[in-house]
Amino acid sequence: MTATAAPEHLDRSVDDVARRAQHAFDGLTRTAPGVRATALRGAAAALADHADELVTLAQEETGLAEARLRGELKRTQVQLRLFAHVVSDGAYLDVRLDEADPDFVLGPRPDLRRSLWPVGPVLNFAASNFPFAFSVAGGDTAAALAAGCPVIVKAHPGHPRLSERTAEIVTAALTEAGLPEATLQLVASQDAGIALVEHPAVRAAAFTGSLRVGQLLAARAAARPDPIPFFGELGSVNPVLVSAHALHERGGELLGGYVASVSGSAGQLCTKPGFLLVPEGAEYDDAVADAAAQVPEHRLLNPSIADGYERRVAQVLGVDGVRVVHAGGFRRAADGQAWVTPTFVAVPLDLLRRAGAALLDEVFGPFSVIVEYPDGTDLAAVVAELFPGNLTLTLHLGEREAAEEQAALVARLGRHAGRVLLGGWPTGVAVTPAMQHGGPWPATTTDGTSVGTAAIGRFLRGVAFQDAPQELLPPPLRDDNPWGVPRTVAARGESLGW
Amino acid sequence: MTATAAPEHLDRSVDDVARRAQHAFDGLTRTAPGVRATALRGAAAALADHADELVTLAQEETGLAEARLRGELKRTQVQLRLFAHVVSDGAYLDVRLDEADPDFVLGPRPDLRRSLWPVGPVLNFAASNFPFAFSVAGGDTAAALAAGCPVIVKAHPGHPRLSERTAEIVTAALTEAGLPEATLQLVASQDAGIALVEHPAVRAAAFTGSLRVGQLLAARAAARPDPIPFFGELGSVNPVLVSAHALHERGGELLGGYVASVSGSAGQLCTKPGFLLVPEGAEYDDAVADAAAQVPEHRLLNPSIADGYERRVAQVLGVDGVRVVHAGGFRRAADGQAWVTPTFVAVPLDLLRRAGAALLDEVFGPFSVIVEYPDGTDLAAVVAELFPGNLTLTLHLGEREAAEEQAALVARLGRHAGRVLLGGWPTGVAVTPAMQHGGPWPATTTDGTSVGTAAIGRFLRGVAFQDAPQELLPPPLRDDNPWGVPRTVAARGESLGW
Repeated sequence: MTATAAPEHLDRSVDDVARRAQHAFDGLTRTAPGVRATALRGAAAALADHADELVTLAQEETGLAEARLRGELKRTQVQLRLFAHVVSDGAYLDVRLDEADPDFVLGPRPDLRRSLWPVGPVLNFAASNFPFAFSVAGGDTAAALAAGCPVIVKAHPGHPRLSERTAEIVTAALTEAGLPEATLQLVASQDAGIALVEHPAVRAAAFTGSLRVGQLLAARAAARPDPIPFFGELGSVNPVLVSAHALHERGGELLGGYVASVSGSAGQLCTKPGFLLVPEGAEYDDAVADAAAQVPEHRLLNPSIADGYERRVAQVLGVDGVRVVHAGGFRRAADGQAWVTPTFVAVPLDLLRRAGAALLDEVFGPFSVIVEYPDGTDLAAVVAELFPGNLTLTLHLGEREAAEEQAALVARLGRHAGRVLLGGWPTGVAVTPAMQHGGPWPATTTDGTSVGTAAIGRFLRGVAFQDAPQELLPPPLRDDNPWGVPRTVAARGESLGW
Repeated sequence: MTATAAPEHLDRSVDDVARRAQHAFDGLTRTAPGVRATALRGAAAALADHADELVTLAQEETGLAEARLRGELKRTQVQLRLFAHVVSDGAYLDVRLDEADPDFVLGPRPDLRRSLWPVGPVLNFAASNFPFAFSVAGGDTAAALAAGCPVIVKAHPGHPRLSERTAEIVTAALTEAGLPEATLQLVASQDAGIALVEHPAVRAAAFTGSLRVGQLLAARAAARPDPIPFFGELGSVNPVLVSAHALHERGGELLGGYVASVSGSAGQLCTKPGFLLVPEGAEYDDAVADAAAQVPEHRLLNPSIADGYERRVAQVLGVDGVRVVHAGGFRRAADGQAWVTPTFVAVPLDLLRRAGAALLDEVFGPFSVIVEYPDGTDLAAVVAELFPGNLTLTLHLGEREAAEEQAALVARLGRHAGRVLLGGWPTGVAVTPAMQHGGPWPATTTDGTSVGTAAIGRFLRGVAFQDAPQELLPPPLRDDNPWGVPRTVAARGESLGW
């Protein structure tokens, strides 16, 4: 099954796709890491070579701006290159060698050598809002390929032509570098995606999308005769907490930054600040409204997202006591696409508590809620109660406010988000070794990360070899360490010191 | 809720137990790793101080032999001390520091600092067959405490008095060392266990037991409004594959070792070899029968396990074509406990295929099946088809048989087990950094390990802090690294080389 086959054909042969992935896995396990690293770099280069064509396609299909898409494509290339670096380095294998030890504290210990291995074929559900970075050749694909897993991408219906073209370009680069033919495959229909979650050959699934669909797929993955891990990113409201001191010191800059963070890419980002918590009595109306009025109209990704946005905004506005700070526009074009400008509302903390899901659930798009909290409020307790699971939490403090007592607040915030920012804005996610993009439910289904080098860990499993002769050991476990990977050795005699 | 409270009282206040665990978690997060390490060593010492009393209780409640129980208690102490070592070392935190980088390839990069943090209260279902090492103060408890998680143990009904006494002794040691009061709690009833799987304060569960109960609990964990990870060890048949050369060279030693591995602790071990695969025409009857006849009668753990054993053995013997190599005894004593000697049967590979679950499902007890395979059989394919998920797979080759072609076989076996042994026997699990005790379903529900230092990873989650001032960072992320933990730094300018 190549990426160019017709979707109908793809969907008729789900079993075929899975078997081809399994076969590719056999080939991948015999491929040296250097080949995998070269292939990832080749894929990055191929994307760069076709940048103009791909960005044009993406603009047409998603309505995202050219500059944003060029930046995202660059990020996608960097992700692939970063994972090439991870593969070459080999630390991700977590190689542990126990020397055989006749004096081991519990009696003679065998020679044990453990490292991490690819789980097998991975199914990756592409997202609508990042047609490059969380799609066919995006972060989940890069991490799985780096781990040595073949990938089946369920294309997002929001950008079908871009998906096919990306798969063609990347597949050509991967096979050119020597990876098996079906290392990357594409399926188009929702039915195919669901069938593949349940296919015995598929060993893990990654998903970025809505809570509803994510829950459905997670339940399928858990109900298999042999359940598989399901790494879903399902939604996050990314509260931003502002202290009185911070607002006093740099209110204008803060409120401008807030409006920009909510409005970028028409708010269709998983790290968009859905809530800004400010002290009661704070003055923000004019600053927010003025900045919001400057934001140009932006197309939403597709009519289905527009429907959801329209419905959720109406639901929030229908709650008694919600005050509109700036009413944005919503215009449906002849082609069914919606064009919007951002909307901001304000509520007292009390109302947020009483209204529950109507206010608390994510609004995907350029919309955010300003929450006024009374003096003396324990902000970490508010987070624990109302926003228990987030990708990010942001805390803006005053210049001289960062002290011992605030350290406890920061530590408590760390329980409810994968990333805690002190200042700045959560949108714009660095692709680096220390990034964590994943947090307590519903931000993600597990506490893994889908951005940064730690993302590879989701597609690995531990295997130990006991008393194996050198010639039967996988290369990274042999005495001569032919791949030159870092290793931790538990030396003979060491246990006596425990 | 202390460990000495009556079980009825415990079960009436499940919510209380969970809240106390949550409160203990607050305290634990403020506890330095040195205190946690000292507490773990103190718990180990306290168990040693009470060894005679505990072993006597365990003998009465489980019927396991004194030497085995003393060895297991020693192992339990070593586990606690090994995890103290892990905590002090700090490598498990996987600290990653990204230096702020104005020249980052995707634009200015913030200061990002990520490490792993405890998930919160952990629920641990104790096993029947390891009243020390997989029970109240066993490996899962040690790993969770080391991670900084309070633990609620659901005691196994097979050894209730031992569980309470162990909890008392360990709790006293932990609180003496300065850990919060409810760091370790005990509940007794199945209903309490189920209720706690669903309690919002519980953030992960570990389980060692039957496939049936494990599946029930896993489904509950997955069906929560906020699903939690469920680390279950559900069953493994641990096939041992013997080549013609190996049998020819050292048949007597092999068959004797096999009978011993099947019979130890009356076969009530998760790594007991349930199947021995030998070449067609091999002669093994006399050697197996003679060795089996030497095995003294051993009590099964409890009447419920005896019922299951009796039923499964009868089911296997009822399959047409199963040949009895050695018929063991099964004697029900007046107190309801069963006393057994081992039983061995033989089948051709074909029959195993046709009979399916009746033969393939685990028999928990001193029973094993010898499978005769035809010359030229692809043993890895047999494993993939009939035994896809195991804790262990063992391969016995001839002296000069270990060669290039066998390396591929070993690699393929690694897909179906967490530990692959070249020679030796899977029973007797070393507690070391390189151990992997966990494998594809149904061996475990995830590919984590429940033995060895990597077990701590199941109870951790990643959190990154962005642009935080020094005084707001958790200690292991501060520039001055007060805990002295190992850290990986992504240096400024480095991305230009990716």
